[in-house]
Amino acid sequence: MKAGMFVKPGRVVVTDAPMPVIEKPSDAVIRILRACVCGSDLWWYRGISKREQGSLTGHEAIGIVEEVGDEVTHIRPGDFVIVPFTHGCGKCAACRAGFDGNCMNQEPGGNAGYQGEYLRFTNADWALIRIPGKPGDYSDDTLNSLLALSDVMATGYHAVASAEVKEGDTAVVMGDGAVGLCGVIAAKLRGAERIIAMSRHADRQRLARQFGATDIVPERGADAVKHVMDMTDGDGADSVLECVGTQESTATALQIVRPGAVVGRVGVPHGKEIDTTKLFWNNNGLRGGAASVTTYDKNILLKAVLDGRIKPGRVFTKRFDLDHIQQAYEAMDQREAIKSLIIVSEA
Amino acid sequence: MKAGMFVKPGRVVVTDAPMPVIEKPSDAVIRILRACVCGSDLWWYRGISKREQGSLTGHEAIGIVEEVGDEVTHIRPGDFVIVPFTHGCGKCAACRAGFDGNCMNQEPGGNAGYQGEYLRFTNADWALIRIPGKPGDYSDDTLNSLLALSDVMATGYHAVASAEVKEGDTAVVMGDGAVGLCGVIAAKLRGAERIIAMSRHADRQRLARQFGATDIVPERGADAVKHVMDMTDGDGADSVLECVGTQESTATALQIVRPGAVVGRVGVPHGKEIDTTKLFWNNNGLRGGAASVTTYDKNILLKAVLDGRIKPGRVFTKRFDLDHIQQAYEAMDQREAIKSLIIVSEA
Repeated sequence: MKAGMFVKPGRVVVTDAPMPVIEKPSDAVIRILRACVCGSDLWWYRGISKREQGSLTGHEAIGIVEEVGDEVTHIRPGDFVIVPFTHGCGKCAACRAGFDGNCMNQEPGGNAGYQGEYLRFTNADWALIRIPGKPGDYSDDTLNSLLALSDVMATGYHAVASAEVKEGDTAVVMGDGAVGLCGVIAAKLRGAERIIAMSRHADRQRLARQFGATDIVPERGADAVKHVMDMTDGDGADSVLECVGTQESTATALQIVRPGAVVGRVGVPHGKEIDTTKLFWNNNGLRGGAASVTTYDKNILLKAVLDGRIKPGRVFTKRFDLDHIQQAYEAMDQREAIKSLIIVSEA
Repeated sequence: MKAGMFVKPGRVVVTDAPMPVIEKPSDAVIRILRACVCGSDLWWYRGISKREQGSLTGHEAIGIVEEVGDEVTHIRPGDFVIVPFTHGCGKCAACRAGFDGNCMNQEPGGNAGYQGEYLRFTNADWALIRIPGKPGDYSDDTLNSLLALSDVMATGYHAVASAEVKEGDTAVVMGDGAVGLCGVIAAKLRGAERIIAMSRHADRQRLARQFGATDIVPERGADAVKHVMDMTDGDGADSVLECVGTQESTATALQIVRPGAVVGRVGVPHGKEIDTTKLFWNNNGLRGGAASVTTYDKNILLKAVLDGRIKPGRVFTKRFDLDHIQQAYEAMDQREAIKSLIIVSEA
């Protein structure tokens, strides 16, 4: 079968990989329909973080269940499913508390290779999210929104959950990548009244406004801090979503947050340390990490997509087939696409 | 009038200070009945942190309102009040959000000198908490519990609020000083099912059990981590209250917290930086700071004391008059008292 494979920084190819098989009774094998490239993939694509040469790529998909192990009873072959990057067992203390991104019973393997024709998926029974009906029942746009529920939309939602965004809040979203834009969607879904998107790119500003941003702040650093503080009469924001992960972005987030409020961060941290003593003197919280994809999808996001209340699939602004996976990465690396969609199979 | 004054590390005296007067229309002058020594005072008493020579001491009291400024309408002369260390205006964004410990309209002055016969208290209208009736209506024990609401009990409650302790939780309390012990009371008040007190002193262990601790862990460092992880089947605690502030205590707190859970800290940080990247990979939150004394007292704690549901006054294990203020500090410094009570006036 065909699958995307990492060769070296800047180079991803389609390779002929062995067909995955059920290895554990808790596994499923999924036939992938749509996959995509994640902003976090750019860290290794750009050579900033390490990745094993020859490893299969991708961690977001929707697909059809091909086969399940003996212990998988809630999901059946033929089911149309969201294939999250997380693999929660649904039973451990972390999953029970709603943090399936930190499942304590994760199996080795099964966390990569979603950009391929077939995938072995671990902890399939609880982690996979069944979508009603068949792919053919949905529009192309809705399929893309369902795909977004495998990571990026759930990650945006994790930012608002971590930042404790609530009805009436003034929320600031740091980062105008696909996650930040989904953070805007999530802030609106939670009832934020004012949503300030930090964005300096016209196409992303436009999408942020479509998703519910009420204000755009194009500055960075000290100028951005001044702009947001002026907009909030010196109070700072009720909640800040940190969807970048750099030192500068995190530092800015901590300067624009109201006393007592929380910075919810989902940008993988690539900076140095944060002055947590300052957090103390301002009573600010710092929280976040890997999204609880299955929890959020089952509790709120799948229904919101099916009801048409949220349309996170709009973050896919370029489309590729699997054979053009290199171009899919290049488009994101060059900021030509907000997020690259990869059509693996049309049905 | 007589008031406690800092001379140098290890030395506090009673001095003859000028009678405080109303300086701003939002002030009140309070006649102090009972005051006490705070664990945070030991930082400067021991010379670890700086304090201005000749500054008046103390930031916790109960007393009688002597006089109020023109803008003070909710509090009248003769009112019996809790005199918190915080001075919330009740109107700014921080106070409205329930973080009056970070009031954005704090007046200079009025934050020290509670260990004296009279005190000028700023932002009196909202920050002071009226106690029904007169001091003579209450037992000695209840008066002490009311005094505890000026800081230590509210600070313990801030730890559980910051750590998001909820019904059924396994909560760990780091620190067996008066704040930690009040953290135990607060965890029980919020419905924690299992409360693990980290304590190595028999008198404090006893009090922790009286307050609701179900388990005692006397170890520190790696041994403490192992003990708590064993007790929780490797899951870690649902919430951790950090009531110490040292590097070691904070490091331990972060190692015993379940994925997704929050470390609520009220120990003034005196350590180096925390590895916040580790927080991210475990989805842990870090939150806390100065307590919201007025908010907590008005919303929950005053009623809980008056109903006899909580008895935080038990943390006062030694009693002094104002003339023996030096001995009050010594007793805490030497760990002979859990917390030193200072009787300023009997009525």
